[in-house]
Amino acid sequence: MKIQIINGPNLNMLGKREPGIYGDQSFESYLKTLRSQYQDIEFGYAQSNIEGELVTLIQDSGDKSDGIILNGGGYTHTSVAIADAISAISKPVVEVHISNLLSREEYRHKSITGRVCRGTVMGFGLDGYRLATEALINIVKRG
Amino acid sequence: MKIQIINGPNLNMLGKREPGIYGDQSFESYLKTLRSQYQDIEFGYAQSNIEGELVTLIQDSGDKSDGIILNGGGYTHTSVAIADAISAISKPVVEVHISNLLSREEYRHKSITGRVCRGTVMGFGLDGYRLATEALINIVKRG
Amino acid sequence: MKIQIINGPNLNMLGKREPGIYGDQSFESYLKTLRSQYQDIEFGYAQSNIEGELVTLIQDSGDKSDGIILNGGGYTHTSVAIADAISAISKPVVEVHISNLLSREEYRHKSITGRVCRGTVMGFGLDGYRLATEALINIVKRG
Amino acid sequence: MKIQIINGPNLNMLGKREPGIYGDQSFESYLKTLRSQYQDIEFGYAQSNIEGELVTLIQDSGDKSDGIILNGGGYTHTSVAIADAISAISKPVVEVHISNLLSREEYRHKSITGRVCRGTVMGFGLDGYRLATEALINIVKRG
Amino acid sequence: MKIQIINGPNLNMLGKREPGIYGDQSFESYLKTLRSQYQDIEFGYAQSNIEGELVTLIQDSGDKSDGIILNGGGYTHTSVAIADAISAISKPVVEVHISNLLSREEYRHKSITGRVCRGTVMGFGLDGYRLATEALINIVKRG
Amino acid sequence: MKIQIINGPNLNMLGKREPGIYGDQSFESYLKTLRSQYQDIEFGYAQSNIEGELVTLIQDSGDKSDGIILNGGGYTHTSVAIADAISAISKPVVEVHISNLLSREEYRHKSITGRVCRGTVMGFGLDGYRLATEALINIVKRG
Amino acid sequence: MKIQIINGPNLNMLGKREPGIYGDQSFESYLKTLRSQYQDIEFGYAQSNIEGELVTLIQDSGDKSDGIILNGGGYTHTSVAIADAISAISKPVVEVHISNLLSREEYRHKSITGRVCRGTVMGFGLDGYRLATEALINIVKRG
Amino acid sequence: MKIQIINGPNLNMLGKREPGIYGDQSFESYLKTLRSQYQDIEFGYAQSNIEGELVTLIQDSGDKSDGIILNGGGYTHTSVAIADAISAISKPVVEVHISNLLSREEYRHKSITGRVCRGTVMGFGLDGYRLATEALINIVKRG
Amino acid sequence: MKIQIINGPNLNMLGKREPGIYGDQSFESYLKTLRSQYQDIEFGYAQSNIEGELVTLIQDSGDKSDGIILNGGGYTHTSVAIADAISAISKPVVEVHISNLLSREEYRHKSITGRVCRGTVMGFGLDGYRLATEALINIVKRG
Amino acid sequence: MKIQIINGPNLNMLGKREPGIYGDQSFESYLKTLRSQYQDIEFGYAQSNIEGELVTLIQDSGDKSDGIILNGGGYTHTSVAIADAISAISKPVVEVHISNLLSREEYRHKSITGRVCRGTVMGFGLDGYRLATEALINIVKRG
Amino acid sequence: MKIQIINGPNLNMLGKREPGIYGDQSFESYLKTLRSQYQDIEFGYAQSNIEGELVTLIQDSGDKSDGIILNGGGYTHTSVAIADAISAISKPVVEVHISNLLSREEYRHKSITGRVCRGTVMGFGLDGYRLATEALINIVKRG
Amino acid sequence: MKIQIINGPNLNMLGKREPGIYGDQSFESYLKTLRSQYQDIEFGYAQSNIEGELVTLIQDSGDKSDGIILNGGGYTHTSVAIADAISAISKPVVEVHISNLLSREEYRHKSITGRVCRGTVMGFGLDGYRLATEALINIVKRG
Repeated sequence: MKIQIINGPNLNMLGKREPGIYGDQSFESYLKTLRSQYQDIEFGYAQSNIEGELVTLIQDSGDKSDGIILNGGGYTHTSVAIADAISAISKPVVEVHISNLLSREEYRHKSITGRVCRGTVMGFGLDGYRLATEALINIVKRG
Repeated sequence: MKIQIINGPNLNMLGKREPGIYGDQSFESYLKTLRSQYQDIEFGYAQSNIEGELVTLIQDSGDKSDGIILNGGGYTHTSVAIADAISAISKPVVEVHISNLLSREEYRHKSITGRVCRGTVMGFGLDGYRLATEALINIVKRG
Repeated sequence: MKIQIINGPNLNMLGKREPGIYGDQSFESYLKTLRSQYQDIEFGYAQSNIEGELVTLIQDSGDKSDGIILNGGGYTHTSVAIADAISAISKPVVEVHISNLLSREEYRHKSITGRVCRGTVMGFGLDGYRLATEALINIVKRG
Repeated sequence: MKIQIINGPNLNMLGKREPGIYGDQSFESYLKTLRSQYQDIEFGYAQSNIEGELVTLIQDSGDKSDGIILNGGGYTHTSVAIADAISAISKPVVEVHISNLLSREEYRHKSITGRVCRGTVMGFGLDGYRLATEALINIVKRG
Repeated sequence: MKIQIINGPNLNMLGKREPGIYGDQSFESYLKTLRSQYQDIEFGYAQSNIEGELVTLIQDSGDKSDGIILNGGGYTHTSVAIADAISAISKPVVEVHISNLLSREEYRHKSITGRVCRGTVMGFGLDGYRLATEALINIVKRG
Repeated sequence: MKIQIINGPNLNMLGKREPGIYGDQSFESYLKTLRSQYQDIEFGYAQSNIEGELVTLIQDSGDKSDGIILNGGGYTHTSVAIADAISAISKPVVEVHISNLLSREEYRHKSITGRVCRGTVMGFGLDGYRLATEALINIVKRG
Repeated sequence: MKIQIINGPNLNMLGKREPGIYGDQSFESYLKTLRSQYQDIEFGYAQSNIEGELVTLIQDSGDKSDGIILNGGGYTHTSVAIADAISAISKPVVEVHISNLLSREEYRHKSITGRVCRGTVMGFGLDGYRLATEALINIVKRG
Repeated sequence: MKIQIINGPNLNMLGKREPGIYGDQSFESYLKTLRSQYQDIEFGYAQSNIEGELVTLIQDSGDKSDGIILNGGGYTHTSVAIADAISAISKPVVEVHISNLLSREEYRHKSITGRVCRGTVMGFGLDGYRLATEALINIVKRG
Repeated sequence: MKIQIINGPNLNMLGKREPGIYGDQSFESYLKTLRSQYQDIEFGYAQSNIEGELVTLIQDSGDKSDGIILNGGGYTHTSVAIADAISAISKPVVEVHISNLLSREEYRHKSITGRVCRGTVMGFGLDGYRLATEALINIVKRG
Repeated sequence: MKIQIINGPNLNMLGKREPGIYGDQSFESYLKTLRSQYQDIEFGYAQSNIEGELVTLIQDSGDKSDGIILNGGGYTHTSVAIADAISAISKPVVEVHISNLLSREEYRHKSITGRVCRGTVMGFGLDGYRLATEALINIVKRG
Repeated sequence: MKIQIINGPNLNMLGKREPGIYGDQSFESYLKTLRSQYQDIEFGYAQSNIEGELVTLIQDSGDKSDGIILNGGGYTHTSVAIADAISAISKPVVEVHISNLLSREEYRHKSITGRVCRGTVMGFGLDGYRLATEALINIVKRG
Repeated sequence: MKIQIINGPNLNMLGKREPGIYGDQSFESYLKTLRSQYQDIEFGYAQSNIEGELVTLIQDSGDKSDGIILNGGGYTHTSVAIADAISAISKPVVEVHISNLLSREEYRHKSITGRVCRGTVMGFGLDGYRLATEALINIVKRG
């Protein structure tokens, strides 16, 4: 089973960026732990600050993975283009957010991309990626 | 470790109610599976159609459990009283929704209660309760 | 044929409450007349001030009656929980309001519950319950 | 007793127009049944696609009938002119809609004309005209 | 000098309609007084309940009069078509309203047609037509 | 008969300020013409840039004049205090605006003060003060 | 003189709940002080987390007390049902809030129930109940 | 092949009306050119300033033509009645606007009728009618 | 102890202004009674119709009194300047309104100044000033 | 004559993406047909998923082509940057959309980029590109 | 060269007022430094808490200075009167704010007065006045 | 001292693009002047039309410069991603806009990025970059 993790803008700053909100671990470091926990899953990983590259990454993952874990970062709230890319592929996409967006600024409460994902996991820090993995395993198992 | 599951209005109809959206399994049946999967966790379970009883259930669970899994059903979108009850206790609360609310009616996109929960899991059917359990275990472990 | 009438909050005050708007007859007194007019219909009747009890009453009536006449009172405008209960059962529900809500305060113009009912009768005083009865008879007859 | 039925735009298409929503019976055919059911009531009938002609029809019916059954069609949601005509006469007007407007597009949820009518009957198909007739008989009887 | 007075929907009911708001004099009766006051002005007069006829009346008056006094009635608040007709002609149009719309329902506060008129006179009863006449005389005089 | 004219902020700049919108005549110069046209009317005149002084001027005019012509300038759109002063006195107040506010910026379309005035005259340049005088004469005459 | 105090959801948590906002004294403890201060007033007291029970408590107090002090808690902002109950009785109701709602979240700024109360006292901690008592004594004295 | 062109309010003024926006050619003159370009297409043409007549024209064209080109003029933005007429017939309707509505006033940005048309051509002056003809030919050809 | 009472626009009209809403007693007359009730409190009193003078009065009272009772009148709903003045001083400010603003026009429901006051007393007529005095005594006592 | 076609995000998925909405033909395949239809026009073609690359493509086409056909995809509804690029060049831009955006989600009804284009063609499938070509030819011909 | 600095409400409290936001230096003290830095510029200075006095100050400065630095304080967000005064004079006005309004309350994000100023400098503390001086020197130099 | 200037979309068109708004000088030409004025400051400069590249540029400048001058162009009004990048670094960012956005289209009035910058300079043409430089020097000096 292959899962593609796609991280959006500023998630390359994890560990350095506002640790009170996002924690002090880099994503690369977390990814090692995740891979060691799920050794029979092949995790692809890509990060981009560019909305259109996220579009392309999602389009490309449609054929190459069994499911996508997407943290669209700041594009979550506005990107019709990313939402359209999700609709354009048939593989399940699970949205993850590290912080609880509902307890932050009003403009972070709305998710354009979440509407076309299977579901959302948010507020659990980096552990959300593990939960999303669990969710995807279950979705794929159920067929 | 004790986890209190609290289900809100119409969740007593699971399995009978709009199976296209909510599936065809009753919650009681699902709960058996969940308990068998997590044998060292003591799951309390309560359901009520009454907003104020959910308030009381949350208040009471504050002392008696290590964390709460809450599916507030239709009160999710409007209940300041339930949100205030969550704020009034110190134990972590995880919000679960069976369907992906973001792909349904506009008025289901807003969660008043989610703002004061630790996080949200939604869109994964009954499996969301397992994911919330995983989330709570991790939260308690991290301290 | 069985019709369940379910009245929401403050409708137990009929005859005593703001007679300029709601008239001076109690519902119990009116119900007698209604029953005498439709002797081959079995009218169930329940009133509650509690939103969640109305949810339960609707759920329970799904199996025990051929149709429901619902006056949700003040919950009409806000209750996703009651609307979800109506969607959860297969029997037809007709919404009744004693006064013409459209000529009252702006917040009474919106009906959350009416969206999932078969139809609405409003503005005709207690006579609305008779009209709703007529509507239900016709719905059941048409199959 | 005289009742004037006034139908607005596109109701001349009944039976031919979107039968999934409006049914497959023409209004003329339905009207025959209605007249045969209420033989001591004289039903006037007029239909126009033109907003201003509906205004005139309402003004004229003020003197010539004991009450009006109005289905304003698409003008229901926007016509201050029709609402003003209803306010300008003293005879009771009952608003009828064939479909349940609340379960259709958002812009059909608002009724400008309904604010100045006695009441509304909606969602019961053509049977709504019979229910409106019953309502008017009762209004006239009560004085 | 020729002034065309154009009255919109329900203004044919003046004297009969809601006298608390609109007074008890018919427009025809008022017009006699007005004509006698301004004997060297030729007043044309037309009333229609139909929005599109008002459009045509305005178009036609563009060539035949030196200015128009328009009371668009209920179309004032919504009619882009009438506003476009006013923009399409070069003669000055003065908007008149008998009642003070700002002290009535919120939806009467907005004037679509007033944006393209020279000015507005409202709240002075039928005397507003005399004031509008005075305004037009002055506009024409100034060139 | 005594009429008090009260001009609000920036109307002391008339003739100097944006002549394309407000014309090139000072108010003092116009007032001379107006007084000569209505020799049996005693016109009081006051201008202030200060909202609260306009409140006081209105309060004081309540006893000392038969009616007020008010051009509230920029306070028209926001001043609850001036509107309350108008409500606090019993004499009629007529609102005047030199330009047609409806064809200018959106925030000039709303008049807080106009709601409690008898009526409004706007868009006719300084001639609006003459028309307001005519309106007040008629109001006083009618009693 | 009899005053009925009715407290809504989560006010049973006073002293335990968010002491930074609500203080550290339980309501029962405070009530003792209040009763000792006003020995000739009979204070009834009831608390419920359930909206519909608050409706019933208000209905019942209409006959049994001279006035009601109501802290509707989280239902203040949404409950048409409680507001309707207040309108349904003739005794004066005074709304109390412990914290200053205007300096908290936007959704706490709106009070549906306050519209039909005599007045509001908010922001003074538990002392607000004493002030409301003073207010009610004065209202009853004035007749 | 038959195409019915239906023009709404003020389009009878083309060539005379605001030439900076709408050009200086009358529609009749343009129609001649269009007919000469498409000699095997039979173009019907009708114009009305009256919303309800446009409704009737659309209803009638449903049977008599292979497709409709509609320029609803000022009714485009508000007319539910015209939109309902389009839904009531099965023939394709193409919406045309002479000017680019998106670069004009905000209230011209919204098209109620465009929602139920096949598509829209706007901003190309009278040439839009030729483009709409091309579009309709293609639609009919594709079946 | 010194308390400064600051009244805003039109409160100099108390007793004369809309007695149905504001009562028929002047503030000066009421103040005598208040002073006689609280003989060990020194009440300062100032009224101004001018927003900026209220700003200055609040700034000046910051040093000279132990607390302020403020009735901002019509500026309550819009004045950022007064709110900033309240924030700029350290002494407690209590907002008072004579009428229940929540049962009046929508634009009176919002209080800009109330957000930075300690609390609000409204709806109890002039007695609100006594209640505010009681509130301030308690605030000062608690420290 | 040179026409530059610029396609935005996800249009590289044409033929594979949601064929119910977008059809089953790839753009490259369609482009061949288009080129063969207009052999004397040189069509440039570029597609990008990246908003900023679309900005650059538009800037570059300003000098190198006689007009642009732009389908901005999901950026149509939000991109001020693309709109500014269109304003920054002097060549005409025609907006094309394959589906009728007005009959899809609300957020697709608004076009930021369409405001600064010459016009829009939408709802005609890939044929819209041919119609836009026709429109551009006419624009260039007219000068 | 003469520059007039005009400060609005509460800026007389600088140094004393909320030092966390506004710093701990009085404006008078800062002004000394500024004057010593720009010895060939004559700085006029005026402060008022009264909106209308700010209007007058701006009007008067139109003739007496080469440019104005305006900090409208709380009136920035609401004052049409001040904005109109700025439009009424021909000299350039630069808006200054000490704090970054965009990172404070929502109602401080909107500037009515800034629309008619040349530009805005905000968020740099008192240094903003120096920057505004630099801006004005450049504007005057460019002519 | 090092200052990084980052320009967003379409600013590479300066001098060529809408000179009435943006002037006729290219940024490169202006930058030379700026560098010659501040010879002891090292100015980095980068421009990109791509939102995500601006995110990366800001992230990278966090370590390599003492402060950033950012003109986000059209992304200013919508980009949460850029705002998050600014929050993710600790160096001060000053927002610059060449034109006065408040006097242009409504959608340019809102700045998402400005909320997390230190301050804003806008409306002074290219001179704004010099003013921002001055502001940054002062911020760095103050520590």
